[in-house]
Amino acid sequence: MTLKEIAQTVGVHVSTVSRALDSNTRHLINPKVVEKILKASRELDYRQNIAAYSLRTNRTRTIGVVIPDITNAIFPPIIRGIEDALLAGGYMAIVGNTDGNRDRERSLVDMFLGRGVDGLVLASVEREDDALDRALADGVPIVTVNRRVEKDTVSSVVHDEYEGIRRVLTHLVSLGHKNIAMIAGPQVLSTGAERFAAFEHHRAAMGLSSRAHLVAFAEAYNEAEGERCVEELLAGGDDFSAVVCANDRLAVGAIAALARHGIRCPQDMSVTGYNDMPMMDRIQPSLTTVRIQQYKMGHAAGMMLQRMIGQEVPPEHAVLPVELVIRSSTAPASSRA
Amino acid sequence: MTLKEIAQTVGVHVSTVSRALDSNTRHLINPKVVEKILKASRELDYRQNIAAYSLRTNRTRTIGVVIPDITNAIFPPIIRGIEDALLAGGYMAIVGNTDGNRDRERSLVDMFLGRGVDGLVLASVEREDDALDRALADGVPIVTVNRRVEKDTVSSVVHDEYEGIRRVLTHLVSLGHKNIAMIAGPQVLSTGAERFAAFEHHRAAMGLSSRAHLVAFAEAYNEAEGERCVEELLAGGDDFSAVVCANDRLAVGAIAALARHGIRCPQDMSVTGYNDMPMMDRIQPSLTTVRIQQYKMGHAAGMMLQRMIGQEVPPEHAVLPVELVIRSSTAPASSRA
Repeated sequence: MTLKEIAQTVGVHVSTVSRALDSNTRHLINPKVVEKILKASRELDYRQNIAAYSLRTNRTRTIGVVIPDITNAIFPPIIRGIEDALLAGGYMAIVGNTDGNRDRERSLVDMFLGRGVDGLVLASVEREDDALDRALADGVPIVTVNRRVEKDTVSSVVHDEYEGIRRVLTHLVSLGHKNIAMIAGPQVLSTGAERFAAFEHHRAAMGLSSRAHLVAFAEAYNEAEGERCVEELLAGGDDFSAVVCANDRLAVGAIAALARHGIRCPQDMSVTGYNDMPMMDRIQPSLTTVRIQQYKMGHAAGMMLQRMIGQEVPPEHAVLPVELVIRSSTAPASSRA
Repeated sequence: MTLKEIAQTVGVHVSTVSRALDSNTRHLINPKVVEKILKASRELDYRQNIAAYSLRTNRTRTIGVVIPDITNAIFPPIIRGIEDALLAGGYMAIVGNTDGNRDRERSLVDMFLGRGVDGLVLASVEREDDALDRALADGVPIVTVNRRVEKDTVSSVVHDEYEGIRRVLTHLVSLGHKNIAMIAGPQVLSTGAERFAAFEHHRAAMGLSSRAHLVAFAEAYNEAEGERCVEELLAGGDDFSAVVCANDRLAVGAIAALARHGIRCPQDMSVTGYNDMPMMDRIQPSLTTVRIQQYKMGHAAGMMLQRMIGQEVPPEHAVLPVELVIRSSTAPASSRA
């Protein structure tokens, strides 16, 4: 009806209008004609009625995105990447926050499935994840982003954790550090487990001290846990001159706790982070860290998911490269250790 | 059908199941019974089918949220507040980013309306905003958050800009500053216009220098514009010992540009921000700024919008109080000015 009005206004066939209004077929039409049609559609106040589309196709063109917490600075660029990739394909994202709570994750996934989402992007998964198992049983396409599950049948976009930790350790060794501690992340998360495994692997390969007291395990990726883990490392009694942190927030907490003990970073102790979240170049000292590509990771996950919707494709696993960013929180080993 | 199965499993009437599964009526049912019903519903893999609900009620229980950019640190806590308020009422948010582009705002609003959202929360509005006018014509309930439009018929949740700037100026005057400059925000935005008007008003009321060269106008709220505006103020030739910035990102840029001129903050120049976004307590120097309540603001907007859905209510305007947070970017006026 309204398509017909637009077609009459512009003077083209109704099928041309239909193609011009669909972002998947728009490229088939002359750009000048597309512009005229879009202008006319705005003037005629035409709006694509997605509800009617859903009834016809059994698709909602909506994707559920589950994250731990949008106010954690690592996630907004990931979400933005997902949203931009989806928008280009005519999809929109509904985002839910779990706060790391398994029940909340499960109920969000249920809510998304109940709303008939065409796919899920999960940034909240643990290595063994029952909310994900429920979604798999539903048959909805799924991509995990930033983290992955043990099952390699679930598609994922992550970063090269082994390479990130290898670069951090190579940098610290080049500064003369021999006794290097780690504040590891939660071991139920792939990022926590893989960064810790990488630390153990490379520390042995580089012939570094591997005493057990040189590792503290954070229960969550936040500043408070970074502070607590520094106390645990200091109480352990083993000397160390550098602390590798499994993410930036742990490092920020670690530096604050060290300062309370009169241990200056980087003069007395080098500290490294992971992620390069916003403002890490502006804090004091600016943080040496591993830069991941949050936006690109989210975008890749959004594109991967769209390839999976409506067709049988084998699982895909993208591993993005990382970069070491050397700033002022690392310095040559002092006489302290 | 499935409701019936749950009712049989738990041993209650089907209407009890229906009430227990609806977050709006759940409180009417004994909590222990609710728990049994929820457990049974999970076991029977029941999921509320929102699509069917939409057909029956002509509601989608979906809200469109339009923001400038989710990767700008002020917005995630606002969005989180909106999402939490909506989730409690059984609504979910779809978020779109405009990047400050008017065409993109218009097409997002159109897309949301086409998807039949039950309401809109707009954090992206200019004082005169045609995308908002289109949405008003549609009749969909709207709340603007953080910013407001000139029309007072559009409900809003904002902060007390006049009080924020008054506190900043009172603090600087108490430190002996007499020549105070401002980096004002974009004047098409209510935050930019109101903070500037407040500066002019209070500066006159406090008997401070009011030379025109002491104000520079940023075209966007970002670090690069903060840097550019410092160059403009210094080129103006008038002496000043403090710079009031219309937001934190402008202040971060201003401090960096001042440092390049060998002007130290706070020894040679005091600088203040606005918003107290994350990490402002960790940068060097830590920033004296006006703390707004992002999460609370988002939550209030989400609640306000739900009160407007399905009923005629007069427009509401909430103005939240602000707080001055004094840190180390402000100090007594030096001999410089």
